[in-house]
Amino acid sequence: MTDAVDDVLEAVAERVEPDADERAALERAVDDLLERTTEAVEAVDLDVDVMHVGSTARDTWLSGDRDIDVFVRFPPSTDREVLRERGLAIGRAVLPDGEATFAEHPYITGTYDGFDVDVVPCLRVEAASEARTAVDRTPFHTAYVREHLAEHLAHDVRLAKGFLTAVGSYGSDLRTRGFGGYLLELLVLDHGGFRPLLEAAADWQPPVQYDLEEHATTDFDDALVVVDPTDPERNVAAVVSRTNVSRLQHHARSFLADPTAAAFEPPTPAPIEADEVLADLERRGTHALAVAFDRPDLLDDQLHPQLRRTEAGLATALEAADFEVVRSAAFATDDRAAVLFETEVATRPAIERHAGPPVHLADHAERFFERYVDDETVYGPFIADDRYVVERDRPYPNARDVLSPEAIDEAAHGQHVGAALEDGYDLLVGEDLVELLPEFGADLGDYFDPSP
Amino acid sequence: MTDAVDDVLEAVAERVEPDADERAALERAVDDLLERTTEAVEAVDLDVDVMHVGSTARDTWLSGDRDIDVFVRFPPSTDREVLRERGLAIGRAVLPDGEATFAEHPYITGTYDGFDVDVVPCLRVEAASEARTAVDRTPFHTAYVREHLAEHLAHDVRLAKGFLTAVGSYGSDLRTRGFGGYLLELLVLDHGGFRPLLEAAADWQPPVQYDLEEHATTDFDDALVVVDPTDPERNVAAVVSRTNVSRLQHHARSFLADPTAAAFEPPTPAPIEADEVLADLERRGTHALAVAFDRPDLLDDQLHPQLRRTEAGLATALEAADFEVVRSAAFATDDRAAVLFETEVATRPAIERHAGPPVHLADHAERFFERYVDDETVYGPFIADDRYVVERDRPYPNARDVLSPEAIDEAAHGQHVGAALEDGYDLLVGEDLVELLPEFGADLGDYFDPSP
Repeated sequence: MTDAVDDVLEAVAERVEPDADERAALERAVDDLLERTTEAVEAVDLDVDVMHVGSTARDTWLSGDRDIDVFVRFPPSTDREVLRERGLAIGRAVLPDGEATFAEHPYITGTYDGFDVDVVPCLRVEAASEARTAVDRTPFHTAYVREHLAEHLAHDVRLAKGFLTAVGSYGSDLRTRGFGGYLLELLVLDHGGFRPLLEAAADWQPPVQYDLEEHATTDFDDALVVVDPTDPERNVAAVVSRTNVSRLQHHARSFLADPTAAAFEPPTPAPIEADEVLADLERRGTHALAVAFDRPDLLDDQLHPQLRRTEAGLATALEAADFEVVRSAAFATDDRAAVLFETEVATRPAIERHAGPPVHLADHAERFFERYVDDETVYGPFIADDRYVVERDRPYPNARDVLSPEAIDEAAHGQHVGAALEDGYDLLVGEDLVELLPEFGADLGDYFDPSP
Repeated sequence: MTDAVDDVLEAVAERVEPDADERAALERAVDDLLERTTEAVEAVDLDVDVMHVGSTARDTWLSGDRDIDVFVRFPPSTDREVLRERGLAIGRAVLPDGEATFAEHPYITGTYDGFDVDVVPCLRVEAASEARTAVDRTPFHTAYVREHLAEHLAHDVRLAKGFLTAVGSYGSDLRTRGFGGYLLELLVLDHGGFRPLLEAAADWQPPVQYDLEEHATTDFDDALVVVDPTDPERNVAAVVSRTNVSRLQHHARSFLADPTAAAFEPPTPAPIEADEVLADLERRGTHALAVAFDRPDLLDDQLHPQLRRTEAGLATALEAADFEVVRSAAFATDDRAAVLFETEVATRPAIERHAGPPVHLADHAERFFERYVDDETVYGPFIADDRYVVERDRPYPNARDVLSPEAIDEAAHGQHVGAALEDGYDLLVGEDLVELLPEFGADLGDYFDPSP
């Protein structure tokens, strides 16, 4: 017997399941690419093999996905420089119009027959735990999923991916910090389906740990732990933010209580307009400050952690100057980046209370007293309870001065973001926030209409 | 051999020591008063005796002091109502123009021959520890000091009183919460002089305990403990505020390091002018709020603890509404009273962050979510880390509203001060603070030029 949840899951099948034409097109492209890669490899006098990896290799790809990952595996003893040079050469032979990309590891990315293709050199290490870089692990993941994931569960993985996409928590990239494909494959596998996964997630009492191979050798700190079946020391869910764990819990409950196909539709936010931004600022009564600057030349996975570091560093600096941050955010487009803060107030008094040592600690107390007794700029020293106190000039009576070039330079930053800020930035205060439009209209729309 | 400290102490002797004429006048007045009281007592058919108590009885009075205390001691079994009635009748007979005063205990206060005289009925209890009210203890204190304080130490007690007067910490009244006469007598007695007391105070490492009779039976919590030689369970210094302990330490060090006769001169503060108040507020950049009202009909010793309770209660209310208090004060004249606050800011945003339960606590979390999901007045619910969060209307975005009649009524108050505020008050905000002038000019002068 089926119920409303099952009915909806069946109804959304069409959205997530590739149809026969899509499958045929993919298979053709993959066959061609593997053949081209094998040919290119033969030109290299090394023991190199070729693997199709990723979700298209695992049959867990979503209808509409256009990603094909071809991995070229070199012997584990291969010199780093050789790997790089030969690997890129093979990639260029496969994708003559491709471009070299340098993340943790260089590879060639391009298109073939309408698909987005990566040709990635890696090391054919003995075990995932011996991986030098993340890409060395990927073939093990693909092999594990291929071996263990029954065909009917591939469909459930697609449902999981579709659901998390709609929630906005799909992807292990460092912007999203959500649930990646491999993680969802393991969760669906362990629960025997998407619906049992949802039911379990609704009831999670973090920390929650999954260990399909029952081989964990490490204590993990994360709220959600899924021990990598191919590497006992790795938590596949380590990248998932605490917020994304909670969001899955919320949306799982919400869907189970009121199952609708709409839960699988990603929201399509309308960019916010200037008058709405101004109305929100007026309504909220907060003090808005944004630092907007040219995006440094970084990949998303490098940029976003750095942006968050700068966001946290500047929030800390604002709070240290007694400008409590109501909320903050960081945004980036291809060209520009911005960190946004709403502080409780725009100004603090010119003075701040500065308590000295207890009066009975004679040496310290006398030094404190002598330092200030003839200082005309302070009020006091006077005595409150057991201590000397002065009211002295506050270093930053205005929030905006905490974001001055000199002060911003003192804060903690992501390295390249810090360097970009040294090159210059726009400080937008209060109503000037609208200058972030239209570039960051969708981001600001989310910001001023936050949802789970 | 004497040093600079001794030289100064000798030089100030004249200021504190009553001269022969003063002594003669006092003795005359005391003799007359005791005679008049004894006569009045004879009209009463009870076993009542008469005692001269206080500093004039102990020969520790300061030149210029005009206080004579005559105690009329009734048998310990005397009924409360009888004590009151007969006691006041005797007082009225001694001081026909005197007035009845009702503190813990009723008595007659008036003037005689230029002296301020109190005629106080009390119970002749067996021991100070059996005192029903504070006045029952006084005869024991007088007897103890008369018995133990050598004549040369009376002079040192006078120096101590003169010094603490100049510091502003002389008096066990509940406005000052300083060092009373009996306390200073005991401290001088224990140290064998004023200078050794100063030297000890400079080095105090609170908690400090003195116990002349080595008979303490209780653990005391106070920073300064002087066990009453006439009652092992009582700390004579219990009333001394922590600030006044520290002030004595500061001024003792300061005088020993740089002995000057000026240390015995009470400051004569010039009342602050309106333009100076405005300049200070501008300079400080704080937000001033004062609640000014008619003084309730209370003695100083009743009023000041209540004023402090109201000051603390309103400060707590302001801080609870996120208006951090930089400094506060409470003032009273014979007619008016005021509590003053300087807050860091005048306004907070219209909204405040309100974090709900962790999302994984399903029952609580769902209730929180349902409460707010359709509430158009809040931002959210959204998820931050493990919790639901909304930004909802802040109850008091303006500091002044925390001092509105409705809000002020919710705060903790001294009883009669709370009642007085219900009858009405003036709320003075920002520059309106000058309306406290000229009445509280000296208090505000101290406030804006605080010293140890």
